Amino acid sequence: MVTVGFIGFGIMGSPMATNLAKAGFDVVGFNRTPERVGALASVGITLATSIEALVRASDVIITMLPDSPDVESVALGESGVFAHAAPGLLFVDMSTIRPDVAAHLAKEAASRGIDALDAPVSGGEAGAIEGSLSIMAGGSSQAFERARPYFEAMGRTIVHVGPPGSGQTVKAANQLMVAANLQGLAEAVVFLEAYGVDMVPALEVLGGGLASSTVLQRKSTNMLERSFAPGFRLSLFTKDMGIIQAAAREKGVTLLLGSLVAQTIASLVARGDGDLDHSAMIRVVDELSK
Amino acid sequence: MVTVGFIGFGIMGSPMATNLAKAGFDVVGFNRTPERVGALASVGITLATSIEALVRASDVIITMLPDSPDVESVALGESGVFAHAAPGLLFVDMSTIRPDVAAHLAKEAASRGIDALDAPVSGGEAGAIEGSLSIMAGGSSQAFERARPYFEAMGRTIVHVGPPGSGQTVKAANQLMVAANLQGLAEAVVFLEAYGVDMVPALEVLGGGLASSTVLQRKSTNMLERSFAPGFRLSLFTKDMGIIQAAAREKGVTLLLGSLVAQTIASLVARGDGDLDHSAMIRVVDELSK
Repeated sequence: MVTVGFIGFGIMGSPMATNLAKAGFDVVGFNRTPERVGALASVGITLATSIEALVRASDVIITMLPDSPDVESVALGESGVFAHAAPGLLFVDMSTIRPDVAAHLAKEAASRGIDALDAPVSGGEAGAIEGSLSIMAGGSSQAFERARPYFEAMGRTIVHVGPPGSGQTVKAANQLMVAANLQGLAEAVVFLEAYGVDMVPALEVLGGGLASSTVLQRKSTNMLERSFAPGFRLSLFTKDMGIIQAAAREKGVTLLLGSLVAQTIASLVARGDGDLDHSAMIRVVDELSK
Repeated sequence: MVTVGFIGFGIMGSPMATNLAKAGFDVVGFNRTPERVGALASVGITLATSIEALVRASDVIITMLPDSPDVESVALGESGVFAHAAPGLLFVDMSTIRPDVAAHLAKEAASRGIDALDAPVSGGEAGAIEGSLSIMAGGSSQAFERARPYFEAMGRTIVHVGPPGSGQTVKAANQLMVAANLQGLAEAVVFLEAYGVDMVPALEVLGGGLASSTVLQRKSTNMLERSFAPGFRLSLFTKDMGIIQAAAREKGVTLLLGSLVAQTIASLVARGDGDLDHSAMIRVVDELSK
């Protein structure tokens, strides 16, 4: 039986690993805070005491971590995955990190005979629990085909978008579009409220025309109720805006809207709203208005 | 039989009037350029020689005109609709105009015993032809119920959103959200192209997650091919951005993103791109990038 080594049991990683176990894979976990993995024993996920032990037990390693330095440390650190990997290992990072870091990891992996993919996801906690994530993978076609059975246990729209780093590039574009759609919705809601329009029918008719979006369908209730339990935290969203701004600068691409939303999101995090859902972007519009 | 007087046979008005005639209403038309209406004789639309004659023949008047001054002139002018209307007429303006002008027209109508509605639409030329428009109506419930049979001949999502002017307020919000989603998509496309990502699978996976929108589904091909035949002209879009900016200022609502997209759209019109489709917003991103 194939053994999947899974590293990173946060809001996203825990349900993703659970879906792998439910699909019949033998899942071994490693987490910097082992208590979290312990709670997954009920679905048959066991715990390794070190990355070394995890790598020796696994045919594939999947990581789901907060940020680029976390992935670099887990993959390239002295007691990390690559230090203990035998040639032929499949390494799939599903975190959202910098495209250049993903490309660098793929290069390091290749020099050791490891097949690497960057395969970030969209769809949030709900998509992770339902197994309906969108998965955007960068790397070789061969590595993508090897990873497909695992992706199918976690996601619904599974696409190979190009060479190493491409998955992260597409994810960065995804986050930019989500931020644009959220900011547009937030400004529309505050504007309509100021005019005393009936909001429920208004949002219904906006959802029936060219203004419709998944953000409108999923996030307008949070905005109307000013209820911002995460969901997807602004502290992670501001990290993602940093990723796309740096990546755009690198290629000489100017993102006017990208800069604006990066600033509004950063301002919320700076004043202590980092643990709120990203629908809290409406707070900036509220506070700049009467 | 109920007679519908229809004023304004442009890209939107012509198919809307055609759908009313096909639904079995007796449609009489008036247009400042009568040739256009003449072409609709095949669906049984006849032509009145003056607004006075049109109003005397009709139980309801529907207008579909480019801008606020056009509607003011047709409704309030010396030889306009209100000058010749008997009490009990239903007046439905489906143009996209300023909410304060719509509210003013409703007040003038009420003082003459006319039932008035502002009922702008979303869905574009395709929606007008298919009869699948989204219709957002402001005015009394009684006037809305009187107008419902006509709306059902032209649209699919038909919603009463509040008192006079509310339809225009919701339409303004619609245009703001469309502009936000277009600008976000444009920046994402230029960014992904700069990285050499495979665009078709990338857009497929973006359309499967939280970044998805009707704009992404309908406008990404125009953007990828840089093919900007209208569709919805930038010259009308810049008028709409003026409407929402003025209406927001009136109520003390600050639209950071609204201002940014208003500027990028205005810059395209200023340099002569007013007759292009609004997907041409990607031109600004292209020109500000390498």
